[in-house]
Amino acid sequence: MSEHTVQPSVTVLGLGPMGRALAGAFLDAGVRTTVWNRTPGRDAELTGRGAVAASSPEEAVAASPLTVVCVVNYDASDAVLRQDAVTAALKGRTVVNLSADTPGRARDTDEWAGRHGIRYLDGAIMTPAPTIGTDDAVFLHSGPEELYREHRPVLAALGGGHTHLGEEIGRAAAYDVALLDVFWTAMAGYTHAIAVARAEGVTATELAPFAQGIAAILPPLFTEFAADIDAGTYSGDLNPITSAASTMDHIVHASEAHGIDASVMRVIEGQARRVIARGHGGDGFSRVVEVIAHR
Amino acid sequence: MSEHTVQPSVTVLGLGPMGRALAGAFLDAGVRTTVWNRTPGRDAELTGRGAVAASSPEEAVAASPLTVVCVVNYDASDAVLRQDAVTAALKGRTVVNLSADTPGRARDTDEWAGRHGIRYLDGAIMTPAPTIGTDDAVFLHSGPEELYREHRPVLAALGGGHTHLGEEIGRAAAYDVALLDVFWTAMAGYTHAIAVARAEGVTATELAPFAQGIAAILPPLFTEFAADIDAGTYSGDLNPITSAASTMDHIVHASEAHGIDASVMRVIEGQARRVIARGHGGDGFSRVVEVIAHR
Ligand SMILES: NC(=O)c1ccc[n+]([C@@H]2O[C@H](COP(=O)([O-])OP(=O)(O)OC[C@H]3O[C@@H](n4cnc5c(N)ncnc54)[C@H](OP(=O)(O)O)[C@@H]3O)[C@@H](O)[C@H]2O)c1
Ligand SMILES: NC(=O)c1ccc[n+]([C@@H]2O[C@H](COP(=O)([O-])OP(=O)(O)OC[C@H]3O[C@@H](n4cnc5c(N)ncnc54)[C@H](OP(=O)(O)O)[C@@H]3O)[C@@H](O)[C@H]2O)c1
Repeated sequence: MSEHTVQPSVTVLGLGPMGRALAGAFLDAGVRTTVWNRTPGRDAELTGRGAVAASSPEEAVAASPLTVVCVVNYDASDAVLRQDAVTAALKGRTVVNLSADTPGRARDTDEWAGRHGIRYLDGAIMTPAPTIGTDDAVFLHSGPEELYREHRPVLAALGGGHTHLGEEIGRAAAYDVALLDVFWTAMAGYTHAIAVARAEGVTATELAPFAQGIAAILPPLFTEFAADIDAGTYSGDLNPITSAASTMDHIVHASEAHGIDASVMRVIEGQARRVIARGHGGDGFSRVVEVIAHR
Repeated sequence: MSEHTVQPSVTVLGLGPMGRALAGAFLDAGVRTTVWNRTPGRDAELTGRGAVAASSPEEAVAASPLTVVCVVNYDASDAVLRQDAVTAALKGRTVVNLSADTPGRARDTDEWAGRHGIRYLDGAIMTPAPTIGTDDAVFLHSGPEELYREHRPVLAALGGGHTHLGEEIGRAAAYDVALLDVFWTAMAGYTHAIAVARAEGVTATELAPFAQGIAAILPPLFTEFAADIDAGTYSGDLNPITSAASTMDHIVHASEAHGIDASVMRVIEGQARRVIARGHGGDGFSRVVEVIAHR
């Protein structure tokens, strides 16, 4: 692998929107990039920019000391990596799996890698494809610190911030699942809000600037909430959960009056009502963490 | 009401965390402020700063040309305002109801006000109590433009940005319900994310900075999503709903593996799966707006 000291090289498996963004950023940074995707034809733009197209995943992984996998989930990465020829070709090489899945799947993949002499890091990408290669990208990693340090220079080509969360291989996926929970729940709330607004004659585009205002109040509240939950104080001094539940009730009624499904908010209101029923109506919404974790 | 031209004056009904913040901002701005709350004793700090304590709501509203109501909801504001003595004392005066409720309740209150010769504006507050009196406060108003202009100088004492959304009295509540939908759904997602993270050995405080990173990616996505939904394009080019649904599945499984209630995410995943089942798996999550609005 003497060419590796001359020019860094990497293989990217998976050329969905994110895999293509990763490969593009490697190319932009002058990294020799070999690409492969299950369905052919996704590599046209990348090969035009200098990527090497491999004709099989085993050929792809053999081309570089480091393989970055970015497919839909670990069923998909297993389907690629756990083929005998691919597993054999990976021996002694490093895999960084940037596909999303659960901590359990990351641990299982680590075990598989260990059994086959494959060096393994797990990771997660917390920002959309257009951020890749820019300062805005956010990457989380877990696994052996030394292995992370070894590959950090090549991974830096992806731009943004990289955080090594620790040696426990499931850690990146734990953060990923939690952060995607925040993301998709918020996006679902916004989508629902748009449905309600439209039913009231307000366009999504009219609502958007005010919704951005809501996003802007979240960061400081996230910090306060975290401290409040870790300390177990659940303070409702500034906003009691009785007030929150009343507001949730308005959302349910305003939605259903227009025939809009309000089942997400019904569940959330139910959680708040359980807190109140337990005698904690003066506490903050943060107390819900207790009712959802212990059913 | 000649003292009104000398020193502006206002009455605040309701002294929960938000009512107290409003009254405090009026006092800070030199507005003569009369206060009343159903449960006595909530006005101590405010009277210490110069607020006039009224002994009944009718006495309170008679003290000022403008009454700002800020109680938990419109059942509560009705309980205060629709007492005969209060309704009579309000004749010819203006009420701005900053309590949260549905557009329907705002319309109903407007009708009641019209029947009793009470001038009526509806409003909503979109930021937490500590923002009141600062540049960060956000107020929405609807109702007669002329009436809004007349009281705008006094309302400016509350700080922040005030937007008159139009004459249709339900408009402020329509925005309020939609924006609180974004807010509470996001907060519920964050609370759930903390439960999952804690079960994986990550504290809320460790998760918080990364959750802030998620909040930071929302504003530009909110704008894109709005344009995409108003245009009916539902583009999945950068993130197909099949990918989103897979991620949601990880959240459900990672939660339930720890005995954490995942019913909110189960509902959201179900909405995504319905979009996929209708043959739109290559579209973006935004397409969910169609399945929730037409059941
Ligand atoms: N897009 C984003 O904004 C974003 C942001 C952060 C993280 N991520 C994560 O990045 C990963 C990739 O996402 P994406 O946006 O590129 O699109 P995606 O739709 O999640 O994944 C598409 C990729 O997965 C491959 N794939 C699916 N099933 C497969 C199988 N059984 N065997 C082999 N390959 C399979 C597809 O190959 P074919 O072309 O052959 O179908 C394609 O390369 C996901 O885990 C996602 O959660 C994405
Ligand atoms: N706190 C915030 O951060 C925030 C932010 C934006 C908007 N808001 C909105 O502002 C409004 C007030 O909120 P808040 O935070 O001050 O606390 P809240 O808990 O929503 O409301 C408490 C106030 O409502 C009064 N009240 C409740 N039921 C009543 C009834 N039947 N008759 C008369 N008064 C009654 C309470 O009087 P007692 O003291 O007698 O119980 C108290 O003055 C709500 O609509 C809320 O959604 C609040």
